[in-house]
Amino acid sequence: MQELEERIAARGRVLGENVLKVDEFVTHQVDPVLMNLMGDRLAEVFADKKITKVVTLETSGIAPAIFAAQTLGVPMIFARKSKSLTMNEELLTSSVYSFTKQVTSTISISRKFLSAEDNVLIVDDFLANGQAAKGLIELCRQAGAHVEGVGIIIEKSFQDGRKLLEDMDIPVVSLARIASLKNGEIEFAKADA
Amino acid sequence: MQELEERIAARGRVLGENVLKVDEFVTHQVDPVLMNLMGDRLAEVFADKKITKVVTLETSGIAPAIFAAQTLGVPMIFARKSKSLTMNEELLTSSVYSFTKQVTSTISISRKFLSAEDNVLIVDDFLANGQAAKGLIELCRQAGAHVEGVGIIIEKSFQDGRKLLEDMDIPVVSLARIASLKNGEIEFAKADA
Repeated sequence: MQELEERIAARGRVLGENVLKVDEFVTHQVDPVLMNLMGDRLAEVFADKKITKVVTLETSGIAPAIFAAQTLGVPMIFARKSKSLTMNEELLTSSVYSFTKQVTSTISISRKFLSAEDNVLIVDDFLANGQAAKGLIELCRQAGAHVEGVGIIIEKSFQDGRKLLEDMDIPVVSLARIASLKNGEIEFAKADA
Repeated sequence: MQELEERIAARGRVLGENVLKVDEFVTHQVDPVLMNLMGDRLAEVFADKKITKVVTLETSGIAPAIFAAQTLGVPMIFARKSKSLTMNEELLTSSVYSFTKQVTSTISISRKFLSAEDNVLIVDDFLANGQAAKGLIELCRQAGAHVEGVGIIIEKSFQDGRKLLEDMDIPVVSLARIASLKNGEIEFAKADA
Protein backbone atom coordinates (compact mmCIF):
# COMPACT_ATOMS: atom_id res chain seq x y z
CA MET A 1 0.00 0.00 0.00
CA GLN A 2 1.64 3.11 -1.25
CA GLU A 3 0.57 5.48 1.58
CA LEU A 4 2.00 3.06 4.13
CA GLU A 5 5.31 2.56 2.31
CA GLU A 6 5.70 6.31 1.99
CA ARG A 7 5.02 6.79 5.70
CA ILE A 8 7.46 4.04 6.66
CA ALA A 9 10.13 5.57 4.41
CA ALA A 10 9.53 9.03 5.88
CA ARG A 11 8.92 8.25 9.57
CA GLY A 12 10.07 4.68 10.29
CA ARG A 13 13.40 4.28 12.03
CA VAL A 14 15.80 1.38 11.65
CA LEU A 15 17.20 0.14 14.97
CA GLY A 16 19.60 -2.59 13.88
CA GLU A 17 19.12 -5.20 11.16
CA ASN A 18 15.92 -6.65 12.63
CA VAL A 19 14.03 -3.79 14.20
CA LEU A 20 11.91 -1.20 12.39
CA LYS A 21 10.39 1.32 14.79
CA VAL A 22 7.05 2.83 13.73
CA ASP A 23 5.95 4.26 17.05
CA GLU A 24 4.91 7.57 15.46
CA PHE A 25 1.95 6.08 13.60
CA VAL A 26 1.40 2.40 14.54
CA THR A 27 2.77 1.04 17.81
CA HIS A 28 2.48 3.88 20.34
CA GLN A 29 1.10 6.99 18.65
CA VAL A 30 -1.49 5.94 16.07
CA ASP A 31 -2.59 7.83 12.96
CA PRO A 32 -6.33 7.11 12.68
CA VAL A 33 -6.54 8.25 9.05
CA LEU A 34 -3.81 5.88 7.84
CA MET A 35 -5.07 3.13 10.15
CA ASN A 36 -8.59 3.44 8.73
CA LEU A 37 -7.21 3.22 5.17
CA MET A 38 -5.25 0.10 6.11
CA GLY A 39 -8.22 -1.57 7.81
CA ASP A 40 -10.35 -0.78 4.73
CA ARG A 41 -7.73 -2.22 2.40
CA LEU A 42 -7.52 -5.50 4.34
CA ALA A 43 -11.31 -5.73 4.47
CA GLU A 44 -11.47 -5.19 0.70
CA VAL A 45 -8.98 -8.01 -0.01
CA PHE A 46 -11.03 -10.46 2.08
CA ALA A 47 -14.45 -9.06 1.09
CA ASP A 48 -15.63 -12.25 -0.67
CA LYS A 49 -14.54 -14.64 2.10
CA LYS A 50 -17.71 -14.35 4.21
CA ILE A 51 -15.66 -13.22 7.22
CA THR A 52 -17.68 -13.37 10.47
CA LYS A 53 -15.01 -12.28 12.99
CA VAL A 54 -11.77 -10.30 12.94
CA VAL A 55 -9.29 -11.59 15.53
CA THR A 56 -6.13 -9.87 16.77
CA LEU A 57 -3.76 -9.97 19.72
CA GLU A 58 -3.53 -7.05 22.14
CA THR A 59 -2.13 -4.36 21.88
CA SER A 60 -0.91 -2.87 18.60
CA GLY A 61 -3.17 -5.03 16.43
CA ILE A 62 -6.35 -3.54 17.88
CA ALA A 63 -6.46 -0.34 15.80
CA PRO A 64 -6.11 -1.93 12.34
CA ALA A 65 -8.37 -4.82 13.42
CA ILE A 66 -11.24 -2.57 14.56
CA PHE A 67 -11.22 -0.66 11.26
CA ALA A 68 -11.12 -3.89 9.21
CA ALA A 69 -14.01 -5.24 11.31
CA GLN A 70 -15.98 -2.03 10.87
CA THR A 71 -15.67 -2.22 7.09
CA LEU A 72 -16.51 -5.93 7.02
CA GLY A 73 -19.48 -5.31 9.36
CA VAL A 74 -18.43 -7.95 11.90
CA PRO A 75 -17.19 -7.98 15.52
CA MET A 76 -13.50 -7.78 16.42
CA ILE A 77 -12.03 -9.93 19.18
CA PHE A 78 -8.68 -9.26 20.79
CA ALA A 79 -6.90 -12.21 22.36
CA ARG A 80 -5.42 -11.43 25.73
CA LYS A 81 -1.85 -12.01 26.78
CA SER A 82 -2.80 -12.34 30.44
CA LYS A 83 -5.94 -13.63 32.08
CA SER A 84 -8.29 -10.85 33.13
CA LEU A 85 -9.89 -11.03 36.58
CA THR A 86 -13.34 -11.50 35.11
CA MET A 87 -12.33 -14.09 32.48
CA ASN A 88 -13.79 -16.90 34.53
CA GLU A 89 -15.29 -18.82 31.65
CA GLU A 90 -14.00 -21.55 29.41
CA LEU A 91 -11.03 -20.30 27.41
CA LEU A 92 -9.31 -21.17 24.18
CA THR A 93 -5.58 -20.92 24.92
CA SER A 94 -2.32 -21.34 23.07
CA SER A 95 1.35 -20.60 23.61
CA VAL A 96 3.31 -17.91 21.82
CA TYR A 97 7.10 -17.91 21.89
CA SER A 98 8.77 -14.52 21.58
CA PHE A 99 12.20 -14.72 19.94
CA THR A 100 13.01 -11.15 20.99
CA LYS A 101 12.00 -11.57 24.64
CA GLN A 102 12.89 -15.31 24.74
CA VAL A 103 9.80 -16.14 26.78
CA THR A 104 6.71 -18.23 26.08
CA SER A 105 3.40 -16.62 26.99
CA THR A 106 -0.14 -17.93 27.00
CA ILE A 107 -2.76 -16.12 24.94
CA SER A 108 -6.48 -16.67 25.30
CA ILE A 109 -9.95 -15.95 23.95
CA SER A 110 -13.23 -16.82 25.66
CA ARG A 111 -14.60 -19.91 23.96
CA LYS A 112 -18.07 -18.40 23.60
CA PHE A 113 -16.83 -15.90 21.00
CA LEU A 114 -15.65 -18.42 18.38
CA SER A 115 -17.38 -21.45 16.91
CA ALA A 116 -17.25 -23.82 13.94
CA GLU A 117 -19.59 -21.41 12.13
CA ASP A 118 -16.94 -18.68 12.06
CA ASN A 119 -14.74 -17.56 9.15
CA VAL A 120 -11.94 -15.59 10.72
CA LEU A 121 -9.63 -12.88 9.42
CA ILE A 122 -6.61 -12.47 11.67
CA VAL A 123 -5.10 -8.96 11.70
CA ASP A 124 -1.85 -7.85 13.28
CA ASP A 125 0.56 -4.94 13.00
CA PHE A 126 3.78 -6.91 12.41
CA LEU A 127 4.65 -10.30 10.94
CA ALA A 128 8.16 -11.40 11.88
CA ASN A 129 8.60 -15.02 12.96
CA GLY A 130 4.86 -15.63 12.78
CA GLN A 131 4.55 -16.93 16.31
CA ALA A 132 1.72 -14.57 17.34
CA ALA A 133 -0.29 -15.32 14.19
CA LYS A 134 0.33 -19.06 14.63
CA GLY A 135 -0.96 -18.84 18.22
CA LEU A 136 -4.10 -17.03 17.03
CA ILE A 137 -4.67 -19.61 14.27
CA GLU A 138 -4.40 -22.38 16.87
CA LEU A 139 -6.99 -20.64 19.07
CA CYS A 140 -9.39 -20.38 16.14
CA ARG A 141 -8.85 -23.99 15.11
CA GLN A 142 -9.52 -25.18 18.68
CA ALA A 143 -12.98 -23.65 18.29
CA GLY A 144 -13.40 -25.34 14.89
CA ALA A 145 -13.42 -21.93 13.21
CA HIS A 146 -11.99 -21.55 9.71
CA VAL A 147 -9.14 -19.06 9.31
CA GLU A 148 -9.52 -17.40 5.91
CA GLY A 149 -6.31 -15.44 6.10
CA VAL A 150 -3.91 -13.23 7.95
CA GLY A 151 -3.81 -9.49 7.19
CA ILE A 152 -0.62 -7.71 8.22
CA ILE A 153 0.42 -4.07 8.26
CA ILE A 154 4.20 -4.57 8.06
CA GLU A 155 5.86 -7.86 7.17
CA LYS A 156 9.56 -8.38 7.82
CA SER A 157 10.03 -10.59 4.78
CA PHE A 158 13.58 -11.52 5.77
CA GLN A 159 12.14 -13.49 8.70
CA ASP A 160 10.27 -16.80 8.61
CA GLY A 161 6.69 -15.76 9.45
CA ARG A 162 5.16 -15.88 5.98
CA LYS A 163 6.59 -19.33 5.24
CA LEU A 164 5.35 -20.67 8.58
CA LEU A 165 1.78 -19.46 7.90
CA GLU A 166 1.73 -20.53 4.25
CA ASP A 167 2.92 -24.00 5.34
CA MET A 168 -0.26 -24.03 7.50
CA ASP A 169 -2.30 -23.26 4.32
CA ILE A 170 -3.13 -19.75 5.48
CA PRO A 171 -3.05 -16.92 2.91
CA VAL A 172 -1.01 -13.92 4.06
CA VAL A 173 -1.71 -10.39 2.86
CA SER A 174 0.80 -7.72 3.92
CA LEU A 175 0.33 -4.03 3.18
CA ALA A 176 4.08 -3.40 3.33
CA ARG A 177 6.89 -5.93 3.01
CA ILE A 178 10.38 -5.13 4.22
CA ALA A 179 13.04 -7.04 2.28
CA SER A 180 15.95 -5.79 4.35
CA LEU A 181 16.98 -3.36 7.09
CA LYS A 182 20.71 -3.75 6.47
CA ASN A 183 23.05 -0.77 6.78
CA GLY A 184 20.27 1.31 8.31
CA GLU A 185 18.35 1.31 5.01
CA ILE A 186 14.73 0.24 4.54
CA GLU A 187 14.43 -1.89 1.40
CA PHE A 188 10.88 -2.80 0.37
CA ALA A 189 9.69 -5.96 -1.38
CA LYS A 190 6.50 -5.84 -3.46
CA ALA A 191 3.50 -5.60 -1.12
CA ASP A 192 0.43 -7.86 -1.47
CA ALA A 193 -2.11 -5.06 -1.50
CA MET B 1 -26.01 7.57 25.29
CA GLN B 2 -29.12 5.59 24.67
CA GLU B 3 -27.65 2.92 22.35
CA LEU B 4 -24.99 2.15 24.95
CA GLU B 5 -27.41 1.95 27.87
CA GLU B 6 -29.65 -0.37 25.87
CA ARG B 7 -26.69 -2.60 25.01
CA ILE B 8 -25.52 -2.69 28.63
CA ALA B 9 -29.03 -3.55 29.81
CA ALA B 10 -29.34 -6.32 27.20
CA ARG B 11 -25.83 -7.80 27.17
CA GLY B 12 -23.96 -6.60 30.27
CA ARG B 13 -23.64 -9.04 33.14
CA VAL B 14 -23.41 -8.18 36.81
CA LEU B 15 -20.71 -10.13 38.67
CA GLY B 16 -21.12 -8.94 42.24
CA GLU B 17 -21.84 -5.43 43.48
CA ASN B 18 -18.76 -3.86 41.86
CA VAL B 19 -18.24 -5.69 38.58
CA LEU B 20 -20.13 -5.15 35.33
CA LYS B 21 -18.90 -7.43 32.58
CA VAL B 22 -19.21 -6.08 29.03
CA ASP B 23 -16.87 -8.49 27.26
CA GLU B 24 -19.34 -9.04 24.40
CA PHE B 25 -18.97 -5.54 23.01
CA VAL B 26 -16.24 -3.56 24.83
CA THR B 27 -13.51 -5.40 26.73
CA HIS B 28 -12.80 -8.57 24.73
CA GLN B 29 -15.12 -8.78 21.74
CA VAL B 30 -15.68 -5.28 20.36
CA ASP B 31 -18.65 -4.00 18.34
CA PRO B 32 -17.11 -1.55 15.85
CA VAL B 33 -20.45 0.08 15.01
CA LEU B 34 -21.27 0.95 18.61
CA MET B 35 -17.62 1.85 19.29
CA ASN B 36 -17.58 4.25 16.35
CA LEU B 37 -20.79 5.91 17.59
CA MET B 38 -19.25 6.29 21.05
CA GLY B 39 -16.00 7.73 19.72
CA ASP B 40 -18.01 10.18 17.58
CA ARG B 41 -20.11 11.22 20.56
CA LEU B 42 -17.07 11.96 22.72
CA ALA B 43 -15.44 13.87 19.87
CA GLU B 44 -18.61 15.95 19.45
CA VAL B 45 -18.72 16.90 23.14
CA PHE B 46 -15.11 18.14 23.02
CA ALA B 47 -15.30 19.55 19.47
CA ASP B 48 -14.68 23.18 20.52
CA LYS B 49 -11.74 22.41 22.83
CA LYS B 50 -9.04 22.46 20.14
CA ILE B 51 -7.97 18.93 21.05
CA THR B 52 -4.59 18.02 19.52
CA LYS B 53 -4.14 14.48 20.94
CA VAL B 54 -6.35 11.71 22.27
CA VAL B 55 -4.62 9.70 25.00
CA THR B 56 -5.66 6.33 26.42
CA LEU B 57 -4.17 3.42 28.35
CA GLU B 58 -3.76 0.02 26.71
CA THR B 59 -5.83 -2.17 26.15
CA SER B 60 -9.61 -1.66 26.22
CA GLY B 61 -9.41 2.10 25.78
CA ILE B 62 -7.79 1.84 22.36
CA ALA B 63 -10.94 1.20 20.32
CA PRO B 64 -13.03 4.15 21.59
CA ALA B 65 -9.93 6.37 21.58
CA ILE B 66 -9.06 5.67 17.94
CA PHE B 67 -12.59 6.51 16.79
CA ALA B 68 -12.66 9.72 18.86
CA ALA B 69 -9.26 10.67 17.42
CA GLN B 70 -10.44 9.91 13.88
CA THR B 71 -13.45 12.20 14.27
CA LEU B 72 -11.36 14.96 15.89
CA GLY B 73 -8.73 14.60 13.14
CA VAL B 74 -5.82 14.15 15.59
CA PRO B 75 -3.42 11.34 16.56
CA MET B 76 -4.19 8.85 19.33
CA ILE B 77 -1.52 7.77 21.81
CA PHE B 78 -1.84 4.72 24.03
CA ALA B 79 0.18 4.72 27.23
CA ARG B 80 1.90 1.42 27.90
CA LYS B 81 1.67 -0.60 31.08
CA SER B 82 5.06 -2.18 30.50
CA LYS B 83 8.15 -0.87 28.80
CA SER B 84 8.51 -2.08 25.23
CA LEU B 85 11.92 -3.31 24.07
CA THR B 86 12.28 -0.43 21.64
CA MET B 87 11.09 2.31 24.04
CA ASN B 88 14.63 3.49 24.60
CA GLU B 89 13.88 7.20 24.63
CA GLU B 90 12.96 9.60 27.34
CA LEU B 91 9.66 8.64 28.93
CA LEU B 92 6.88 10.33 30.83
CA THR B 93 5.94 7.89 33.62
CA SER B 94 3.47 7.70 36.46
CA SER B 95 2.15 5.12 38.90
CA VAL B 96 -1.31 3.59 38.79
CA TYR B 97 -2.66 1.71 41.78
CA SER B 98 -5.19 -1.02 41.01
CA PHE B 99 -7.67 -1.56 43.84
CA THR B 100 -8.90 -4.81 42.29
CA LYS B 101 -5.44 -6.30 41.73
CA GLN B 102 -3.87 -4.48 44.71
CA VAL B 103 -0.71 -3.71 42.79
CA THR B 104 0.93 -0.49 41.64
CA SER B 105 2.12 -0.42 38.06
CA THR B 106 4.08 2.11 36.06
CA ILE B 107 2.56 3.54 32.89
CA SER B 108 4.49 5.47 30.29
CA ILE B 109 4.40 7.54 27.12
CA SER B 110 7.40 8.62 25.06
CA ARG B 111 8.09 12.24 25.89
CA LYS B 112 8.36 13.23 22.24
CA PHE B 113 4.62 12.67 21.69
CA LEU B 114 3.34 15.28 24.18
CA SER B 115 4.33 18.91 24.69
CA ALA B 116 3.10 22.13 26.27
CA GLU B 117 1.38 22.89 22.95
CA ASP B 118 -1.03 19.96 23.35
CA ASN B 119 -4.67 19.99 24.42
CA VAL B 120 -5.46 16.42 25.40
CA LEU B 121 -8.67 14.43 25.55
CA ILE B 122 -8.23 11.31 27.68
CA VAL B 123 -10.49 8.39 26.71
CA ASP B 124 -11.01 5.14 28.58
CA ASP B 125 -13.55 2.34 28.68
CA PHE B 126 -14.26 2.36 32.44
CA LEU B 127 -14.10 4.93 35.22
CA ALA B 128 -14.13 3.33 38.66
CA ASN B 129 -11.68 4.70 41.23
CA GLY B 130 -10.12 6.99 38.66
CA GLN B 131 -6.57 5.79 39.20
CA ALA B 132 -5.86 5.06 35.52
CA ALA B 133 -7.22 8.45 34.40
CA LYS B 134 -5.28 10.19 37.20
CA GLY B 135 -2.08 8.48 36.01
CA LEU B 136 -2.72 9.62 32.44
CA ILE B 137 -3.42 13.20 33.60
CA GLU B 138 -0.12 13.18 35.50
CA LEU B 139 1.73 12.01 32.36
CA CYS B 140 0.19 14.82 30.33
CA ARG B 141 0.96 17.44 32.99
CA GLN B 142 4.60 16.28 33.16
CA ALA B 143 4.84 17.29 29.51
CA GLY B 144 3.14 20.61 30.24
CA ALA B 145 0.14 19.55 28.13
CA HIS B 146 -3.32 20.77 29.06
CA VAL B 147 -5.92 18.09 29.76
CA GLU B 148 -9.28 19.34 28.46
CA GLY B 149 -11.29 16.44 29.78
CA VAL B 150 -11.81 12.74 30.29
CA GLY B 151 -14.25 10.85 28.07
CA ILE B 152 -15.52 7.58 29.50
CA ILE B 153 -17.66 4.79 28.07
CA ILE B 154 -18.98 3.38 31.36
CA GLU B 155 -18.71 5.15 34.71
CA LYS B 156 -19.33 3.28 37.93
CA SER B 157 -20.83 6.29 39.68
CA PHE B 158 -20.93 4.51 43.05
CA GLN B 159 -17.12 4.63 43.12
CA ASP B 160 -14.86 7.65 43.66
CA GLY B 161 -13.37 8.24 40.19
CA ARG B 162 -15.47 11.19 39.09
CA LYS B 163 -14.91 13.08 42.34
CA LEU B 164 -11.14 12.47 42.17
CA LEU B 165 -10.95 13.88 38.62
CA GLU B 166 -13.28 16.81 39.27
CA ASP B 167 -11.16 17.70 42.31
CA MET B 168 -8.26 17.93 39.83
CA ASP B 169 -10.38 20.42 37.77
CA ILE B 170 -10.86 17.95 34.93
CA PRO B 171 -14.30 17.74 33.27
CA VAL B 172 -15.61 14.16 33.03
CA VAL B 173 -18.02 13.05 30.30
CA SER B 174 -19.43 9.54 30.64
CA LEU B 175 -21.65 7.93 27.99
CA ALA B 176 -23.24 5.63 30.57
CA ARG B 177 -23.31 6.01 34.35
CA ILE B 178 -24.05 3.08 36.60
CA ALA B 179 -25.65 4.14 39.88
CA SER B 180 -25.73 0.66 41.39
CA LEU B 181 -25.14 -3.01 40.68
CA LYS B 182 -26.85 -4.20 43.87
CA ASN B 183 -28.93 -7.39 43.87
CA GLY B 184 -27.70 -8.28 40.41
CA GLU B 185 -29.55 -5.30 38.91
CA ILE B 186 -28.06 -2.57 36.72
CA GLU B 187 -29.39 0.82 37.80
CA PHE B 188 -28.41 3.76 35.59
CA ALA B 189 -27.81 7.38 36.61
CA LYS B 190 -28.32 10.13 34.03
CA ALA B 191 -25.45 10.01 31.50
CA ASP B 192 -23.48 13.10 30.47
CA ALA B 193 -23.92 12.64 26.74
